[in-house]
Parts: sequence; structure tokens; C-alpha cells
Amino acid sequence: MISRWLTVMRTGLFVGRFQPFHDGHLQAIKFALMKVDRLVIVVGSSQRDHEKRNPFTLGERLEMLWRALKDEGLLERIVTVPVPDVENHAVWVRTIEVSSPRFEVVFSNDPLTLLLFKEEGYETVEVPLQNRALYMATEIRRRMVGDEDWEDLVPKPVAEYLKEIDGVGRVKRIYRMG
Amino acid sequence: MISRWLTVMRTGLFVGRFQPFHDGHLQAIKFALMKVDRLVIVVGSSQRDHEKRNPFTLGERLEMLWRALKDEGLLERIVTVPVPDVENHAVWVRTIEVSSPRFEVVFSNDPLTLLLFKEEGYETVEVPLQNRALYMATEIRRRMVGDEDWEDLVPKPVAEYLKEIDGVGRVKRIYRMG
Amino acid sequence: MISRWLTVMRTGLFVGRFQPFHDGHLQAIKFALMKVDRLVIVVGSSQRDHEKRNPFTLGERLEMLWRALKDEGLLERIVTVPVPDVENHAVWVRTIEVSSPRFEVVFSNDPLTLLLFKEEGYETVEVPLQNRALYMATEIRRRMVGDEDWEDLVPKPVAEYLKEIDGVGRVKRIYRMG
Amino acid sequence: MISRWLTVMRTGLFVGRFQPFHDGHLQAIKFALMKVDRLVIVVGSSQRDHEKRNPFTLGERLEMLWRALKDEGLLERIVTVPVPDVENHAVWVRTIEVSSPRFEVVFSNDPLTLLLFKEEGYETVEVPLQNRALYMATEIRRRMVGDEDWEDLVPKPVAEYLKEIDGVGRVKRIYRMG
Amino acid sequence: MISRWLTVMRTGLFVGRFQPFHDGHLQAIKFALMKVDRLVIVVGSSQRDHEKRNPFTLGERLEMLWRALKDEGLLERIVTVPVPDVENHAVWVRTIEVSSPRFEVVFSNDPLTLLLFKEEGYETVEVPLQNRALYMATEIRRRMVGDEDWEDLVPKPVAEYLKEIDGVGRVKRIYRMG
Amino acid sequence: MISRWLTVMRTGLFVGRFQPFHDGHLQAIKFALMKVDRLVIVVGSSQRDHEKRNPFTLGERLEMLWRALKDEGLLERIVTVPVPDVENHAVWVRTIEVSSPRFEVVFSNDPLTLLLFKEEGYETVEVPLQNRALYMATEIRRRMVGDEDWEDLVPKPVAEYLKEIDGVGRVKRIYRMG
Repeated sequence: MISRWLTVMRTGLFVGRFQPFHDGHLQAIKFALMKVDRLVIVVGSSQRDHEKRNPFTLGERLEMLWRALKDEGLLERIVTVPVPDVENHAVWVRTIEVSSPRFEVVFSNDPLTLLLFKEEGYETVEVPLQNRALYMATEIRRRMVGDEDWEDLVPKPVAEYLKEIDGVGRVKRIYRMG
Repeated sequence: MISRWLTVMRTGLFVGRFQPFHDGHLQAIKFALMKVDRLVIVVGSSQRDHEKRNPFTLGERLEMLWRALKDEGLLERIVTVPVPDVENHAVWVRTIEVSSPRFEVVFSNDPLTLLLFKEEGYETVEVPLQNRALYMATEIRRRMVGDEDWEDLVPKPVAEYLKEIDGVGRVKRIYRMG
Repeated sequence: MISRWLTVMRTGLFVGRFQPFHDGHLQAIKFALMKVDRLVIVVGSSQRDHEKRNPFTLGERLEMLWRALKDEGLLERIVTVPVPDVENHAVWVRTIEVSSPRFEVVFSNDPLTLLLFKEEGYETVEVPLQNRALYMATEIRRRMVGDEDWEDLVPKPVAEYLKEIDGVGRVKRIYRMG
Repeated sequence: MISRWLTVMRTGLFVGRFQPFHDGHLQAIKFALMKVDRLVIVVGSSQRDHEKRNPFTLGERLEMLWRALKDEGLLERIVTVPVPDVENHAVWVRTIEVSSPRFEVVFSNDPLTLLLFKEEGYETVEVPLQNRALYMATEIRRRMVGDEDWEDLVPKPVAEYLKEIDGVGRVKRIYRMG
Repeated sequence: MISRWLTVMRTGLFVGRFQPFHDGHLQAIKFALMKVDRLVIVVGSSQRDHEKRNPFTLGERLEMLWRALKDEGLLERIVTVPVPDVENHAVWVRTIEVSSPRFEVVFSNDPLTLLLFKEEGYETVEVPLQNRALYMATEIRRRMVGDEDWEDLVPKPVAEYLKEIDGVGRVKRIYRMG
Repeated sequence: MISRWLTVMRTGLFVGRFQPFHDGHLQAIKFALMKVDRLVIVVGSSQRDHEKRNPFTLGERLEMLWRALKDEGLLERIVTVPVPDVENHAVWVRTIEVSSPRFEVVFSNDPLTLLLFKEEGYETVEVPLQNRALYMATEIRRRMVGDEDWEDLVPKPVAEYLKEIDGVGRVKRIYRMG
């Protein structure tokens, strides 16, 4: 019975870098999960860390995702798939296809992601985010560096985790390198 | 409250190639989950597919894992992390460390995995499997090629999925290449 | 007028390593060119040289192809595309697709090549070669090492080129390394 | 007789990215073919596509080259060799040497290409192009985005091919990503 | 007796790109060698050359180091270890650890180097350089291009070596490429 | 005066894997240093460790070299250059050339090394070793596994270092994996 359901279930794909994971990501995931039964979350630029736009390691980002989604009771409906950057964009879509369970629809706000999957014939859905949300990760890192409030832009378990590992200290030290 | 639990929870690591995922893997995962709260499942040789020892793609293996663990109600307690082979074994452990949530104990039957993590100071646990189980994936592929029964060696949702994608046909074609 | 023809022309794909280029290759190419207007010749294992199964560099193999096809007046109907080995076979087909002019049909004797392209929905044609031809490159190298006749198994311009660069000497030295 | 000619023929090398192939490229190729019997055309940055400076895949660029050179009756005198970027510039020349038929003279407008081959002792020839031609690919992409005339800057078969694959649409979408 | 000393000797680590090796580097090495018995000198960005910030090859930089340190009688107290750039900064430290004799303390002026080794628990020492020295390599290349005096900023054997290989000519040609 | 000597000094190249460094290596190095003023020691397969034929990391091998050569008072006359394996053998020589100070003569017992450098026009010298010495590293590892005497086949400082890091235990554990 479960197997019957498995063959009819609909799977979506959502790509992000999660530097860090924030409320905009969570909203997008919930939006996607209203349209599909299961969501593959691609953790992009998986090989990068300790740089301005990518301060956190893949492991730290998987931990943020796990804690936030556990808190929401969504772990049963997602699969996480790390994918490194590749220069050959035309092969990138195929790399995701062979690295991920089969999916039918792609959710994204990134124009290149939408373009590449559309060229391969996928149904693509632009996630309805306010502009602010789009740039939320940059904004969060800016606030961390400036000792402003950032905790209200991320899920509570993420804020707690970032304190545990002194994520703010990391971001500050990287930004100060200039 | 959940966050308090998160900081005291104990995380384990289990490495496999899952070509295909079978009952021995499931037993090992259940064994590990009696000792730890959460288990990171490393999908090794993640970059390999369509060869004798590695017929299935990463995506297909993640699908097998997902279906088998969903069926057992274990999805909430695991994190999957694909890791490709590297020639530099001494860096392999570190690659896993930065690609995975923090873990405290390593479960494995593979002597090299146990050796490398022990050298880095990890607690390691040899999973108590019968010899047969150790080589179960090879045995399953052998049976597939010989048209013998193999379904009873894998979880039911895995058997069903392998039929959906004609996994037996793939394995046969690859073995016949010689 | 030429452009009209371009859009209806049919393009095939043929994969080989050409270590060295021999009469079996030439027959296969002529066979394919009876079915298609243009043939993409993929030079596989392009990154390998100076080893037993791959004694010649990519450049030397392109030179052999060029001279043999010039001699036959076929240069106008082929495109050569070097492609390195990849471990991720499922991505290999896509790598060829983005590295090559669009093609509709795949000619090959290699079972893995046929399997991978069939899985992606391509029409595949097994080239009708005698068994001997299949292993001709190995046989040619064996004869070179044993000072037996090999020239009659390769096109004349290839034999002359191999003498120019002392290809036999190279093969012998590599085989003697054991 | 053909083989005798082969050993005295002179081969040149020409490096370009061909994003897209344009009239300046064609002029340079014709200029080179007045000095040498055969020309190796290196398709540089072969691994890049779907980005502002490199919108087209390697396969699409090989198609443009093939159609333009067929139209000019030059296919018999060229060999195309794709070469990816490497960080180690001093090894780049050697990579080209082992990937290409032997050549004696290098034609280019790119100062780094000229510098690197000169350091290795090659005869180098700066192709006499007007400044405009040098930057023609950038100019063509700019015109495509601005809905200005661009067709008169590329060979006719290239213009037709770019329409077939909606190349202008691709360039526009990539430029609009900002 | 020598072996006894070996086990108690203290080893430091110093990271630089040495483009070119200059007096600031030499001062830093002498400073470090007052604190430790032996110094591992990591030649960073080892895979880069012939670009503005990295004009010299790894081999040329090892030659500069060797000549300067021979002149100072320091060759017996150093080990050179080339390390290429990696995108995964968190693995970079581990890459150095397995590529180098064991070390206990890290000398550097680079904030990212200090940050990464501190995160791994190493004792780190900021080398007391005047600001000018920090940017000396950039300054030297600027002077070379402008035909100003630069020889007094590098050790004498380095100046002589750079003349032997016409290093100034190389730097000028690369800078002029714009 | 030193600089004058530098420009006339003669540099040799010696390639080894040093798994572990043994008396045969030391003899070869001394032999080479009778013919040249300075020797570049290439540590091959630098990226490999924890496998049967390559149990030790690059760092451990550099430590063995350093201690053995310090003990012999030879540190002032050598430069160590780690080089990883590459599949493209024809580029391997060039990779060494740009990674090393300039050298004029190559010392080796490995037929492929001699072949590749000869093809590039280098003077090559076969080091006069007894057969036994050629296979000494394999023999030493075999003895380690069998609890036989191996210390008399390596320089004393190497034997002491291998005890410090329990090198025998490492080799045994790797061999027992089968």
C-alpha cells in the first residue's frame, strides 16, 4: 500500500546554498510542499566554506536544515542532496538528475537555475518571495557583522545552533579580512 | 526544549555503498540507532554507477534508502551524506567531517574505514553481522544475473523500486559486458 | 540552399579510442556514413597515453584519423570530439551531448556505450564487424611488439605516420616495462 | 604521394573561444591558411557555457565552426581541438601540444597566448585584425541583447544556426540575470 | 643522539606565495626560526603562474627560496611543501597536515590562514611585520612594471636569479595584457 | 661569488615514491650527487596513502627524507618536490618541469620515467642498483607484516621515525584488509 503511494507521489526540487538557512528558505520549502508530496533539497556550492558568501561548511548547513525541518515535523518529506559548483552549466542539470531521486518540478528564485531546467524541459515554479527574502542570507550576514538583530530572520533552532558553534564570530572574522 | 535535547543527542556515522541497499544494511542501521539518537549515513563511492560493483546511480541509491527508511519510520533519525572516493585516504576522514553534522561514534564493517577513523581518535564500533551479510550486495547482484531469488535479501520497498526501474535488467547488461 | 540541407541532414555518433586507428575503424566509419550524412567521431579516453592499452597521445590519434580520412576523401563529413573517461557513467552521455553537434543515432560495438545511450532513448546501431576486427587494436600492438606484420591492418597513411614517429618503438618500450 | 606531401606540409595553430563564431574569426582563419597548409583550431574554455562571456556549449560552437567552414570549403584543411581552461598556464601549452597534431606556428591576437607560446620557442604571428574585430564577440552579444542587427557580423550559416537554436533568447536570458 | 634531538625539536609552519620571494619573507622566516628548530615553508597557490598576482611558476619560486636560504645558511632548518588552492577551506588545513612533517605552531600574517589554523586548535603567531612588508610582493611587481628600483626589496641571490630568467620582462608582459 | 657558482652548478632529478625511504634510495641519491651539484627529489604518487603500495602520507615521507638526509649532511644539496600521479603521461614531464628548479639530467630505475624524459630530450642515467634494491620497498613492507627484520634495510633515523609513528602497525593493518 505504501509502495503504491510511492509510485504516484510527486517529487519537487529546491536549490539553495543556505548560508545560513533562514525563514525565506523555510517559507519556500513549505510552499513547495503544498504542491508536491516530497521535496529534494539541493545544497548548492557544497564544496565551499570559510568565505564571505559561503561562511559555513556543508556539514554545518546540513545540521541547520535538519534542525529546522525536525522542528517543523518535515523531515519525513525531504531528501537532501549536496551538489558542488561546476563550470559546465549544461552538465550541472544532469549531475543533479543522477544524484537525486527522480523529480518532476523545480522550485527556485534563481534565474539561472530556472533557465537551465526549463531548457531541459522541466516544469519550473518561481517561488513567490518578497524581494527582501531573496537577499536574506546576505542581509543576515551583514547584521551579524554589525552586531544588529539577526535571530528573528532564521528559525529558532538555527539561531541556537549558530550560537553553539559561534557562527557570528566566524562570519565577523571572515568579513574583517576584507 | 527540543533544542536542549539537540545539544545532548548523540550522533553516529555509518558508511556504505548500497549497491543495492539490503537487509544487512537495515540491520546495521537499526543496531546503530539503538546506541545513538541520530545516524549520519554516508553513501560512499557516490560518483560511481553503471559498473559491476556499482550498478546504481547516487540518486537511485538515495531513493532506495529513503523508501526503506520511510517504511521503517526511521527517516526522522537519519541524515544522508554522499561522499565520492578520494585517493588521499588521510584526507577522506576530514572530507566526511566537514560534509556531515558532527558525530561521535563510527559504525562499520569495513577495515579501512575503521582504521582511518581510529587513527583520528574516533570511537569505532564493528557492526555484528554474519559473514554472509557482509557480502550480501555481491550475492544479490550474482543472484540477479542468474535469475535466482534475491527479493528476500532486500527490504520490500527496495525490491519494488528495483522492479520499477528494471534494476535487474541493468545489472544483467553490465555483468554480460565481461 | 546549403543551410536547408543542414537542417535535414542526419548526424551519427561513433566512439573509439583509436590506439591505433585501424581498418576496422575505417570500415565502421564507412558503414555509418552510408546511413547518415555526417558522423561525429568521439575519441574516447582522450586524456590517456604512454600506457599499454593507450600508447598514443590524443594529438597523435587525431593525426591518424585526419590522414586516414583525408586519404578517403571523408574529412568533409566528420567532426572529431575528444572526450576523457569519467567515473560517473550516467553523466558521460550528457558530457558527450554538450560537447558534440547534435546527433540522432549511435554506432558502436562496445556494450557499455550501447547500453548507456539506449537508456537515454537513442537509436543505437551495432556495427557489423567480424570478431577479429573488434580486438584489432590489441592484435596490432601485439604484432608490433613481436616484430610481426601489422601494416596491413591499418590504412596506409596511418602506417606511414606511425613509422615517422617510431610508434612501434614506443609500443615496444611500454610493453617491456611489464 | 599524398604521404610525401603530408610530411612536408606546414601546420598552424589558432586559438579562440568562438562565443559565437564571427567574421573576424573567419578572416583570421583564412589569413592563417594563406601561410600554412593546415590549421589546428583550438576551441578554448571548452568546459564553459551558459554564462555571460560563454553562452554557448562546446557542441554548439563546434557546430558553428563546422557549418561556416563547410560553407567556405575549408573543412579539409582544419582540425578542431577543444581545450579546457587550466590554472597552471605553464602547463597549458604542453596540454595543447599533446592534444593536437604537431604544429609549427601560432596565430593569435591574445597577448597571453602569444606570450606563452613564445616562451616555449614557437614562431608566433599576430593576426592583423582591426580593433573592432578583436572585440566582435562581445559586441555581437551586446547587440543580441539590445535587439540590434548582429547577423551581418557572423557568417550566414552561423546566423541561421543561431536562429534554429534560439541563441539570441539564450544570450538575453543570461544577460538579464545580472 | 641526533634522533633524540629530532623527537624534541619544535617545528613551525609558514605559508606564503612568494611572487616573488622578498626581504619581508626572509625576515619572517628568521623570526620564526628564533622560536622553532625547524620550519615548514608552504608554497601556496602552487598551481598558479603567468597571471598578475602569480607571475612565477612553482619551480621558479622553489629556486628563489633555495638560493636565498642557501645564501643565509638556513637550508638545513627548512622543508618546503607546495600546496595548491582548494575551494574547500575547511579541508585545506587537513591537506597541509598530511602533506607536511608534523608542526606545532603556525606563523602568518594572513588573517584567513590564522583563522583556519586557530579553529583547528593550533598555536598561531602573527609575524611582526611593518605594513609595508605585507604588501611588498605587489609593490615589487609594480616597481618592475614602472622600471623603478626593486632589487633592494629582495635578497641578492633572488635579484640575480630574476635577471637570469628575465623575470621583469615576464611581469611587464603580463601586466600589459590588462 | 655564490651566485656565479649557482649559474654553473648542475642539477639532477631523481623520482621515487619512498614507501618507505630505504638504503637503496640513499645509495641512488649519493650516486647522483657524485655527478651533479644539486638534486631535485620528486616524491611521486604524492596524493596517495593508506593503501598497500603506498602506506605513508606525503608528510611522513618528507619527514623520512629530511631525517635521513640531515643525518648524512646532504640537506644543503637537495630540493624536494611532491608530484601527484596524472593519467596523461605526456603532460607529467611538463608538470615536473614547471614544479621544479631547472635540471639537466634524470636519474632513475623506473623504465617509464626514463622513457618519458628521453622522449623530451633529457640526458637520462640508469642508477646502478642491484635487483634487490629495486624492489626493496615491497620487501620491507613484506618483512614488516611478517615480523621479520627490516630495520637494516633503511637508514637509522628512518627506522626510529617509523617506530615513533608505529609505521609497522599501519602497514600490518592495511595488508590484513586483503
